[in-house]
Amino acid sequence: MKPGPKSQREKHGRGARATILAFGAHPDDIEFGCGGVIAKETRAGRAAHFVICSRGEASSHGKPAQRVAEAKKSAGLLGATVEFIKLDGDAHLEVCVAYAIKLAGIIRRMRPGIVLAPSLVENQHPDHPRLGRLVRDACRLARYGGVKELRRWPAHAIEQLFYCAVTPEAEPPDITPVLIDVSAPDVLRAWTSAMEAHASQAAARNYVELQLTRARLRGLRAGCGHAIALFPNDLLVLDSLAHAGRGARQF
Amino acid sequence: MKPGPKSQREKHGRGARATILAFGAHPDDIEFGCGGVIAKETRAGRAAHFVICSRGEASSHGKPAQRVAEAKKSAGLLGATVEFIKLDGDAHLEVCVAYAIKLAGIIRRMRPGIVLAPSLVENQHPDHPRLGRLVRDACRLARYGGVKELRRWPAHAIEQLFYCAVTPEAEPPDITPVLIDVSAPDVLRAWTSAMEAHASQAAARNYVELQLTRARLRGLRAGCGHAIALFPNDLLVLDSLAHAGRGARQF
Amino acid sequence: MKPGPKSQREKHGRGARATILAFGAHPDDIEFGCGGVIAKETRAGRAAHFVICSRGEASSHGKPAQRVAEAKKSAGLLGATVEFIKLDGDAHLEVCVAYAIKLAGIIRRMRPGIVLAPSLVENQHPDHPRLGRLVRDACRLARYGGVKELRRWPAHAIEQLFYCAVTPEAEPPDITPVLIDVSAPDVLRAWTSAMEAHASQAAARNYVELQLTRARLRGLRAGCGHAIALFPNDLLVLDSLAHAGRGARQF
Amino acid sequence: MKPGPKSQREKHGRGARATILAFGAHPDDIEFGCGGVIAKETRAGRAAHFVICSRGEASSHGKPAQRVAEAKKSAGLLGATVEFIKLDGDAHLEVCVAYAIKLAGIIRRMRPGIVLAPSLVENQHPDHPRLGRLVRDACRLARYGGVKELRRWPAHAIEQLFYCAVTPEAEPPDITPVLIDVSAPDVLRAWTSAMEAHASQAAARNYVELQLTRARLRGLRAGCGHAIALFPNDLLVLDSLAHAGRGARQF
Amino acid sequence: MKPGPKSQREKHGRGARATILAFGAHPDDIEFGCGGVIAKETRAGRAAHFVICSRGEASSHGKPAQRVAEAKKSAGLLGATVEFIKLDGDAHLEVCVAYAIKLAGIIRRMRPGIVLAPSLVENQHPDHPRLGRLVRDACRLARYGGVKELRRWPAHAIEQLFYCAVTPEAEPPDITPVLIDVSAPDVLRAWTSAMEAHASQAAARNYVELQLTRARLRGLRAGCGHAIALFPNDLLVLDSLAHAGRGARQF
Amino acid sequence: MKPGPKSQREKHGRGARATILAFGAHPDDIEFGCGGVIAKETRAGRAAHFVICSRGEASSHGKPAQRVAEAKKSAGLLGATVEFIKLDGDAHLEVCVAYAIKLAGIIRRMRPGIVLAPSLVENQHPDHPRLGRLVRDACRLARYGGVKELRRWPAHAIEQLFYCAVTPEAEPPDITPVLIDVSAPDVLRAWTSAMEAHASQAAARNYVELQLTRARLRGLRAGCGHAIALFPNDLLVLDSLAHAGRGARQF
Repeated sequence: MKPGPKSQREKHGRGARATILAFGAHPDDIEFGCGGVIAKETRAGRAAHFVICSRGEASSHGKPAQRVAEAKKSAGLLGATVEFIKLDGDAHLEVCVAYAIKLAGIIRRMRPGIVLAPSLVENQHPDHPRLGRLVRDACRLARYGGVKELRRWPAHAIEQLFYCAVTPEAEPPDITPVLIDVSAPDVLRAWTSAMEAHASQAAARNYVELQLTRARLRGLRAGCGHAIALFPNDLLVLDSLAHAGRGARQF
Repeated sequence: MKPGPKSQREKHGRGARATILAFGAHPDDIEFGCGGVIAKETRAGRAAHFVICSRGEASSHGKPAQRVAEAKKSAGLLGATVEFIKLDGDAHLEVCVAYAIKLAGIIRRMRPGIVLAPSLVENQHPDHPRLGRLVRDACRLARYGGVKELRRWPAHAIEQLFYCAVTPEAEPPDITPVLIDVSAPDVLRAWTSAMEAHASQAAARNYVELQLTRARLRGLRAGCGHAIALFPNDLLVLDSLAHAGRGARQF
Repeated sequence: MKPGPKSQREKHGRGARATILAFGAHPDDIEFGCGGVIAKETRAGRAAHFVICSRGEASSHGKPAQRVAEAKKSAGLLGATVEFIKLDGDAHLEVCVAYAIKLAGIIRRMRPGIVLAPSLVENQHPDHPRLGRLVRDACRLARYGGVKELRRWPAHAIEQLFYCAVTPEAEPPDITPVLIDVSAPDVLRAWTSAMEAHASQAAARNYVELQLTRARLRGLRAGCGHAIALFPNDLLVLDSLAHAGRGARQF
Repeated sequence: MKPGPKSQREKHGRGARATILAFGAHPDDIEFGCGGVIAKETRAGRAAHFVICSRGEASSHGKPAQRVAEAKKSAGLLGATVEFIKLDGDAHLEVCVAYAIKLAGIIRRMRPGIVLAPSLVENQHPDHPRLGRLVRDACRLARYGGVKELRRWPAHAIEQLFYCAVTPEAEPPDITPVLIDVSAPDVLRAWTSAMEAHASQAAARNYVELQLTRARLRGLRAGCGHAIALFPNDLLVLDSLAHAGRGARQF
Repeated sequence: MKPGPKSQREKHGRGARATILAFGAHPDDIEFGCGGVIAKETRAGRAAHFVICSRGEASSHGKPAQRVAEAKKSAGLLGATVEFIKLDGDAHLEVCVAYAIKLAGIIRRMRPGIVLAPSLVENQHPDHPRLGRLVRDACRLARYGGVKELRRWPAHAIEQLFYCAVTPEAEPPDITPVLIDVSAPDVLRAWTSAMEAHASQAAARNYVELQLTRARLRGLRAGCGHAIALFPNDLLVLDSLAHAGRGARQF
Repeated sequence: MKPGPKSQREKHGRGARATILAFGAHPDDIEFGCGGVIAKETRAGRAAHFVICSRGEASSHGKPAQRVAEAKKSAGLLGATVEFIKLDGDAHLEVCVAYAIKLAGIIRRMRPGIVLAPSLVENQHPDHPRLGRLVRDACRLARYGGVKELRRWPAHAIEQLFYCAVTPEAEPPDITPVLIDVSAPDVLRAWTSAMEAHASQAAARNYVELQLTRARLRGLRAGCGHAIALFPNDLLVLDSLAHAGRGARQF
């Protein structure tokens, strides 16, 4: 058993203002998977940073340079900063400890409150669950004081890791999600624009419609316009029932 | 498909001040199952009301009059009001529509935000899951405008139904719970006193230790002193990630 | 263990031409839950018959007479015949053997191949899973030679029982569904009209949008326009992989 | 929460010699579901008693008098005593508290160590899971000191409740079973004879082959001739790993 | 998110005549796991091709040359062609992207409709779930236009991936299988001969009996002689309920 | 499909006296996860051997030399022998076939009856589930006669593999555990001392309290003082119901 350092949250109080750190395997994954949540949080004054782990080199549509440009434009529309890192490349990602440690280094550098990663469901693009597993392990390694490769930065404990499902198949059947209301017109507009900014992909297939249909269906259930599901990796600890929101039971 | 009336919450804003309505099959179920949550919420200024559906007539220990007195004392310690209703009696509860409607009437009368009920897991005292099912259906029937027996009160949509597990076996394996931190000394003290107020039961078996051990184990996981798990019946809809609390990942 | 009579299918070959028998708890449940499937099958020459078990007396919107008229119009648009039966009434349905036997009598009288019923998931309108359980048991009792109340008709074994989910919450998490493509323009049009024929409900809430959004999301996954999920009660027995259709893996 | 009396086992040491009490909904259920286990235990000197809750009146084959005679013969071949009780009759069983109390009375009278009942899986003959639920609740009510209808007998806590699956569909997917080796020639022979003694049923369908095929398949997995799966209602508490048997991992 | 090319099925209509491509980790896995399905489909005029990924070098019985000869003979009896590929060797298979791409190349070359692979359940021979995962990812990579190593062949989208369970432990608990009736005498005979052709294995342990017992048990449930379960990776999309077969509900 | 050699148990009778072999990823995992079970078994005369796969180099607290010394002292207190092996080091463990074969070699050398390993649940310290998977595969490879690297030792089939959960999050939700009573005062004392012997860890966080709280909670459920849960990898095969222990149903 490995101990972790004291939670930052315990030291600094509520983590509500801490940066959101989102990881994507491909240039468009974050936007398609949870762009509306990012738009909402940045509009509420929270910082968001994207780490993208390939340039979409294996895609049927769009060249890497174009994909990178689209991702930068899209992140901007969502109010997020973005960086690209090199792992094995699109459709070639492997799970190995060295990569988890590399991502843990980014976590220690950025010191986020909430981390977002693709879900672990295996029956989707293979890069997605592999990145999800790397991020999950990275969040843990970032806490361990004795990992040599990470000594450059102080240990860091995040507040929560949420998975998002880039496609419907990727929704984890064994985690009860929370729904985030993304119905505010400016939020929905920013999210839609961010998805459309991935023009090479949006032109090839109806990805934008897929995501808006998913969000509308959740919104109908939640009694709002559109909503996005996030799947917590760890049990939610609430200070009060007053923060438990309402239940999605419109029908 | 049955429509429901507009959520009260939509009309009146945040339901954080609405009454908490808790149902128990026996005089001590609410206290043992989630008394710490009640203590915390009433100390934060929220009203709580208990509806107890038997007087413990089939118990191995304690006579009905004593059980009722213990429950009243205990509710007082938790800052809650209490009422007793008559269904089939202890160890004899049946599920039938008439009872669900009766409970729906109480819901319409009390107009709670959050409702608490015993979990639906069947391998526990048979009265518990039966009451849980009655309450779940009652929450729904309270919304339907056309139920004749309920016309006396306007329809009411609750914010959320949470199940609590009176014993460890009763924890639903298919719902991810939320944890409520009940570590504040006055909260923990009030909860403990409320459990001990059920003296006929506490003398017969180590119920109080059982509940405090459960809460301590969850507290250790959550990085706080003690915590209680509540199991939401419907997906949580959050306005922002800032309300998502932190994850329970202390080890 | 109870034996059943020889399957009709074994006697008469392929059951593809046998009647589809659909049960609904309320006047609009069949249309909202699986109307597109009915439209498709009747257009392919198969007979469909609806059995509706209440007149929507407890609904917030629409009087019983209007609800019945809407259901008749709607069934007509789908090419189905319809009958109303009296059980306990809307929002009052109980599960009891006498009702299962009553439904088994209808099954023996109609001798369907495929039977459709609301799913057994409990967290929906309480009448839905109760009717689902009654139909499931009825399909079984219809097979048993010695049930006295049923001696009027010869025993009958159906081909398959499929559950449908009237709302998203009602989708059974433990059964892998099959998707039926309902994208053909005349099918989609008939289904939409049939839903809109329930004018008292469609005016009150966005039920039609809910169902079309669900079907569009499934269609996007399946690589077609719209699709409806049906949840088989028993394992599918296929004569050949050539009948296994294709997999839903569009993204 | 309801306390239970001190376990008999704690008072009298190992319950290995206590009676096995098996409940069946129909005259042949116990034999087809777990007859091999009964044969093995009675041959090892343990007493077994059967409680049969109908006379098979709704069966396609065999008259009640014949069914009763077959059951008596069969129980004798397994070394068990048998009694018939009257509930609602074959294919008509309802779940109600009065029946659970009636069965609890039998449990208090017989004071068994292990109780056997049909599994709770709903997609089988409806009488089976209903009886299973009644027995489960009865085992609990037998422990509660204050149930008036049961005051005639002292409270009794059983050692364990195991479910058996009369048909493959009835195997509970959420309980890890234990396998009991029934390969000894005299055990297998007694079981087979007991099943064949239900001549009215064995003649109508290949029930005997079904059960022997199931047991052979489990035996192949367990590395023995034939084995029967039992599904414990509560976690097994073992005094030592030396009693944990071996794992079924032959292939 | 990665787009895929247009389904071949959409271009060429029904894929019923497309080749079946089956992958096995060891020379006998395909025959023992789903040989009866292959026999049935080839007898109906469909082509089948086997890809075997080791020569059984780590087996307790049989030398590689003998194992290869047995596999060739067996494939012939089933009407299938066969090729051997070299990965890490028996009991040494690792999961890596390069292997998934290698298998994707075979899929692009063979352009199958249906693909068969060992299931992903981990508690079986470790090579089996690893090959299953490689094949699953390969089916996906074969669709992606931009994977450099695959540019030699046009992208290809299969119809469906089915998993088969070589042993009972390997049956995935979370996928509802479909059953394929393999009772026709010539089919059952061909399958049995194909299994017996693996003489080195059949002599060492009762593998043939294991598989025939499994198939007989499923056949009893399905109301036919013998049946084999296949576990679809993706939801089945059916054109009509007329193709949904019948349900397995014989008992 | 791979055959295995004859079980040792079949050759030598009851494996109750065979060595227990426990694997830990870090110097304290075995003690914290299942030390009480070890203490109980060694006190009953069974041999126990620990294989520890790192020296805790990445820990926040304690240097490797100290960790090793603590582990040796702790094993001694539990009556077990201990060896350290070198894989990738703490927080760096990878899953690969070479390691599984290395562990299989240890299994062949030690010829244990029962093997203990950390559970496969992924959301814990990443080394834990990886070691669990390596051990699971090693138990299988140890049976296969043809694995070249293992020819030095005769093949060996273990009796059972049990997983233990080092932290509450690590408890596998899909396996029903067995509970081992560790309440005997000398057993509980030895376990507590063994945990406290890991002074570098015990000083940093309340690990000892965590484990004793978990064991007490299980003990309360089981009707004894303290109990530890073990999760069997394969179905338990029991010779008789007399060995099935009692059920945990104290509340």
